[in-house]
Amino acid sequence: MHFTSETLLDDGVVEREFTLGEIPGILWTPASASASAPAPLILMGHPGGLRYMRSRLTGRALRSAADGFATATIELPGSGDRPPSAQAEQARADLRRTITAGEPVDDELVDRLVLPLVEASVPEWQAALNALLALPEIDGPVGFSGGFISIGIRLATVEPRIAAAGLFAGSYVPRRMFEEARRVSIPLHVLLQWDDEGNDRQAALDLFDAFGSQEKTLQANLGGHTGVPAFAGEDAARFFARHLSRAAVPAGNG
Amino acid sequence: MHFTSETLLDDGVVEREFTLGEIPGILWTPASASASAPAPLILMGHPGGLRYMRSRLTGRALRSAADGFATATIELPGSGDRPPSAQAEQARADLRRTITAGEPVDDELVDRLVLPLVEASVPEWQAALNALLALPEIDGPVGFSGGFISIGIRLATVEPRIAAAGLFAGSYVPRRMFEEARRVSIPLHVLLQWDDEGNDRQAALDLFDAFGSQEKTLQANLGGHTGVPAFAGEDAARFFARHLSRAAVPAGNG
Repeated sequence: MHFTSETLLDDGVVEREFTLGEIPGILWTPASASASAPAPLILMGHPGGLRYMRSRLTGRALRSAADGFATATIELPGSGDRPPSAQAEQARADLRRTITAGEPVDDELVDRLVLPLVEASVPEWQAALNALLALPEIDGPVGFSGGFISIGIRLATVEPRIAAAGLFAGSYVPRRMFEEARRVSIPLHVLLQWDDEGNDRQAALDLFDAFGSQEKTLQANLGGHTGVPAFAGEDAARFFARHLSRAAVPAGNG
Repeated sequence: MHFTSETLLDDGVVEREFTLGEIPGILWTPASASASAPAPLILMGHPGGLRYMRSRLTGRALRSAADGFATATIELPGSGDRPPSAQAEQARADLRRTITAGEPVDDELVDRLVLPLVEASVPEWQAALNALLALPEIDGPVGFSGGFISIGIRLATVEPRIAAAGLFAGSYVPRRMFEEARRVSIPLHVLLQWDDEGNDRQAALDLFDAFGSQEKTLQANLGGHTGVPAFAGEDAARFFARHLSRAAVPAGNG
């Protein structure tokens, strides 16, 4: 992990760009984070394209820093400045054509859109987690927050260091991820936009039902994909404060 | 309205029992409430039986008082110390028999269980509202919170002084209330227990979909009817703080 830039933001939050091998990423740490008082970490998901998503991600990271959390994100394979994938480009072109033609998006296309990205990116998130937790100013517990719900599901299943996840039910989910969802056992806070034009509401409700977690909350708000109200961000922040604050972690789990 | 008892609770909250004609009720006011600084009011719904529900209702009222709100509730017709209704007793007996026999609860029975209570109780809640708002230490805006969702729907439709409602989707809802729900336009916070044994989850989701409000949030939590987690109460309290705090009310609406 190599830091390539460092910027001081409001309230003493430090924003650092980094590369992990060929993968670009960003780390935000609160002013309070130090080797003697390391900050818990939130891995922040997104749909791909760090440059385009930058200001929204920074806003969310600043909110988390106010609660004492470090936040980190990495670019997805095939997105942003990373080499494009012919397979992914083809799947996205097929999706556009299907939607334009008013045809249903079938399981085969959803699998092609999502599964290769999950397979390729989850080990990268785990490598990033290794590198981030090696920094003296960062420590567990670790949360996963946000976009690309299938990546969140897989991470929650395979990565025991993830202690809680705030997921956004706003994208296509392959059928096999419903099976993986049954094996998820960490606390979940799932956000759903009730009138999300690009999302299947019933599938999102079925997915919430499938999660195996003993503590899970679905928060559905009126509005489309990009209309998440400000108070929903506050509620998600409180979810992480409940589950990632050091005092909230049972002995042996932190 | 005649006050029949007065008790000082923690944090200076005053609990007063009252009667409004033959209807018993309880009013909780925060220490801050006075003629020069009147408190906004939350009408607190419940399934009937004030004596049985007392400690839970007091807990919720104390929470609201901490946010500066007065809270009031009245007994439902035919419940608690009020004269029983032969019609309501018959409907409840039919419900017990239907559930014991494992038969579906049909629309006719739901109508008999709920509609007479809505018809009889909503004018009583409005009379209570008149009496409460006449007290110098209480003023608008007014919220409705809690149980018996059909009463909340009807009040939100017919009573313009109700500015926001926090509803609990945990009881049978007659089909005609879905039509009334379309005419509801105030901000809503709807709580659903995902595994409520006595509630139809799909009907609750359909009802949430039907509400005409431009701001509406559904919060679904894992667990049965009585398993509402503590943080859900906190989230509901923040909903009211957003919508009933004097600063949050647009000019002409307070």
